[in-house]
Amino acid sequence: MQGLGFVGSVMSLVCANAVKGDYAVIGVDLPNKRGRKLINDLNNGIFPLVTEDQKIGQFYNKTIKKGNFLATYFEQAYSYADVIIVDINLDVEKENHNSGELTDYNVDLSSFKKAIASIGKNCKEDALILIETTVPPGTCKEVVKPIIYDCLNKRGFSINKIKIGHSYERVMPGPGYIDSIQNYYRVYSGIDAKSADAVESFLHTIIHTDEYPLTRLESTNATETAKVLENSYRAMNIAFMVEWSRFAEEAGVNLYDVVDAIRFRSTHANLMYPGIGVGGYCLSKDALLASWARQNLIGNNEPLAQSETAISINDQMPRFAFEFLQKQYSDLTNTKILLLGVSYRGDVGDTRYSPVEKLYNYLNDLGCIISCHDPHIKYWEEQALDIEQDLMTHLNSTPDVIIISTGHKLYKSKKTIDTLLALHPIFIYDTIGLLSNNQINMLISKHTVKVLGRGDL
Amino acid sequence: MQGLGFVGSVMSLVCANAVKGDYAVIGVDLPNKRGRKLINDLNNGIFPLVTEDQKIGQFYNKTIKKGNFLATYFEQAYSYADVIIVDINLDVEKENHNSGELTDYNVDLSSFKKAIASIGKNCKEDALILIETTVPPGTCKEVVKPIIYDCLNKRGFSINKIKIGHSYERVMPGPGYIDSIQNYYRVYSGIDAKSADAVESFLHTIIHTDEYPLTRLESTNATETAKVLENSYRAMNIAFMVEWSRFAEEAGVNLYDVVDAIRFRSTHANLMYPGIGVGGYCLSKDALLASWARQNLIGNNEPLAQSETAISINDQMPRFAFEFLQKQYSDLTNTKILLLGVSYRGDVGDTRYSPVEKLYNYLNDLGCIISCHDPHIKYWEEQALDIEQDLMTHLNSTPDVIIISTGHKLYKSKKTIDTLLALHPIFIYDTIGLLSNNQINMLISKHTVKVLGRGDL
Repeated sequence: MQGLGFVGSVMSLVCANAVKGDYAVIGVDLPNKRGRKLINDLNNGIFPLVTEDQKIGQFYNKTIKKGNFLATYFEQAYSYADVIIVDINLDVEKENHNSGELTDYNVDLSSFKKAIASIGKNCKEDALILIETTVPPGTCKEVVKPIIYDCLNKRGFSINKIKIGHSYERVMPGPGYIDSIQNYYRVYSGIDAKSADAVESFLHTIIHTDEYPLTRLESTNATETAKVLENSYRAMNIAFMVEWSRFAEEAGVNLYDVVDAIRFRSTHANLMYPGIGVGGYCLSKDALLASWARQNLIGNNEPLAQSETAISINDQMPRFAFEFLQKQYSDLTNTKILLLGVSYRGDVGDTRYSPVEKLYNYLNDLGCIISCHDPHIKYWEEQALDIEQDLMTHLNSTPDVIIISTGHKLYKSKKTIDTLLALHPIFIYDTIGLLSNNQINMLISKHTVKVLGRGDL
Repeated sequence: MQGLGFVGSVMSLVCANAVKGDYAVIGVDLPNKRGRKLINDLNNGIFPLVTEDQKIGQFYNKTIKKGNFLATYFEQAYSYADVIIVDINLDVEKENHNSGELTDYNVDLSSFKKAIASIGKNCKEDALILIETTVPPGTCKEVVKPIIYDCLNKRGFSINKIKIGHSYERVMPGPGYIDSIQNYYRVYSGIDAKSADAVESFLHTIIHTDEYPLTRLESTNATETAKVLENSYRAMNIAFMVEWSRFAEEAGVNLYDVVDAIRFRSTHANLMYPGIGVGGYCLSKDALLASWARQNLIGNNEPLAQSETAISINDQMPRFAFEFLQKQYSDLTNTKILLLGVSYRGDVGDTRYSPVEKLYNYLNDLGCIISCHDPHIKYWEEQALDIEQDLMTHLNSTPDVIIISTGHKLYKSKKTIDTLLALHPIFIYDTIGLLSNNQINMLISKHTVKVLGRGDL
């Protein structure tokens, strides 16, 4: 396993607890600070991710008992492997205006190429190299294959036995972390038929493919496209709702109710709700990988304009959320603000690219006095902030404005609402439509309540 | 019933055959050429729509037997009605560059206002006026209500008893025409509580609401927004796939297979296939109604940029389909081309805003010799063309290029494929991915086959 981050560490557990057969898993990461900590933790019985998925602990304990998983930074590990899975990051360097607008971006493949070369220099002649990293379409064929072939040639090996495949993960951090690998549909391909066959055989051993059948596509270009397309689709559907949120606010309409009414149609069931923004590692960048690929690997200089625009619009969502608050609450300077939730997703402890970070910065720049709560985050790395874990302490600290910024269930619990009702009149701002209409009606009897994407309050 | 077109005529049948109680229906249309023909036909036992839905004939015959439906152009008819349903057109005047790009558009409400006034001048003081026409959000409140109130005032009536509501239809021409009204979800609202209640009571009598529950929204602005939002959503999802179709063609990918692979995810089940373009009365304009409303009824000068862009991109789809053919087939001048299908939708006989019309024009401008087939269209009104109905005659007339332009089942029948296989080698171009992979593999043994959104052939 190359890469022991949010995907690789969990994928390692899934392989070490294969549904068919037995694997010994060696996890490899870089000998830098982050990599060494991951490796040390994993070798010392500490799983590096905090997660709500109980299966992770169970799988990890079984692995320790079986003794079939170790972590290392020695690249020689690849020489022992029959299957080498690539789960390293491939970041997009984005440049955003302070408004959030995307002004430029770049994809730097140099680290990725180095990682692939480290495999090529060590792997068995007949290994299966399975790329799971989200890559610009064309990468397996135009980047991975030449590097591996070149390494094998230099080592005096044949290039006829190696197998290179692509199968992207659909990992979803949260309570279904393991299931999002073991019990979910997979798409796969290979650079040739024997590679695709090898990927297929392998996937049957780690995924419940009887219930979640595999789909083979005809080329690595096709599966690479599928991955970035499905995330671009999601990003674009979110971006689409951004302008309708503004429209609803202006037209005095409750957009959440409108969306619920439309979702009765099965063809429209994926219509998104309004919200504070897009976070996480994938949706905020995958469309750019495709657009970059078009210009750099496929040879059409035109960008994928709509998909890029979607990313840029989504990057502006925290600003829209901020501006809505400004419009509703005259002067925010020196206001005491309580942010409920800093994670990018409800009931998940993950702050990577969280839109709350940008909202925090806008408020901070304005001189607001901000405190933050999140039941899943004790230390907010991106803002270098310790987070007081007791919600009641926060609620009773006399904030002027409470912003619901993440959809954690806790914030709509009866206890939370009751506590809110006992506070002196304040301003409550729901940026994600977490509160039900009933809860809003209760709260509005005492407090000012505003909801992003609702003009009717 | 005000308006006897594609919606009003069928809605009349649904009301005349209510699921609860009995209605006598009077259909009203304008005393112009089109209106008089509709009225004469309906009064003489001829239903004005050709359709695949057998229920239409059954409902119409029952109506004739019961004698509870007559058509007229006398506006005094409104004076007899307890419920007046508005199903007239509200067109957007679009200006498109020859490339298809949307350059300007306008919404002219004058005919609509006149129609509403004709109701206000004649209706009972306590009638329910139910708007079903797709209108710019804000119309019921800012346009309909003032006109009706003004008329009632002038007639010396109270304005306290009239009920004005909005409930948009989701009519789908084709084999499920009636069911798309009688057996489908409805959203409704009123300008006040008594209006909303009246709409609700009425809808229970014409729709199977036990199986397809109604959704009440809080204002006419909300339901008007819901209608244009759901069609904008669809238009935008189509537009999104346009640039990915070009990407797939360049990357040598079969986008249909990619879409099928992604659709396994329930969150992505509405991902669209590539295609020749968007037709029909709604998807090609509804987003513009919203954008116009924002600027003219709601008071924000900014357009709904993404939604407008979606319309403009979709309007360019026939050109993209044409350009793909040009790229694949060197010189089209004087080529004999057979277009299979002129309807805008598979297995439906409806040429309103069909994208095939634009493709036809591009080919025609280039000097191609075009013949057209469509099993559901005998006379193509927009092109003033009689259409030979026998497919075999067309196929055996030695075309150079056959373009599958509408997804009629007939075109992928065994008989059609067998006939194609018996022809001398030709160029077959599938613009909608109608042919299966198996059929393509068969055809490709003899013919050149190209598919829009596929770069792998």
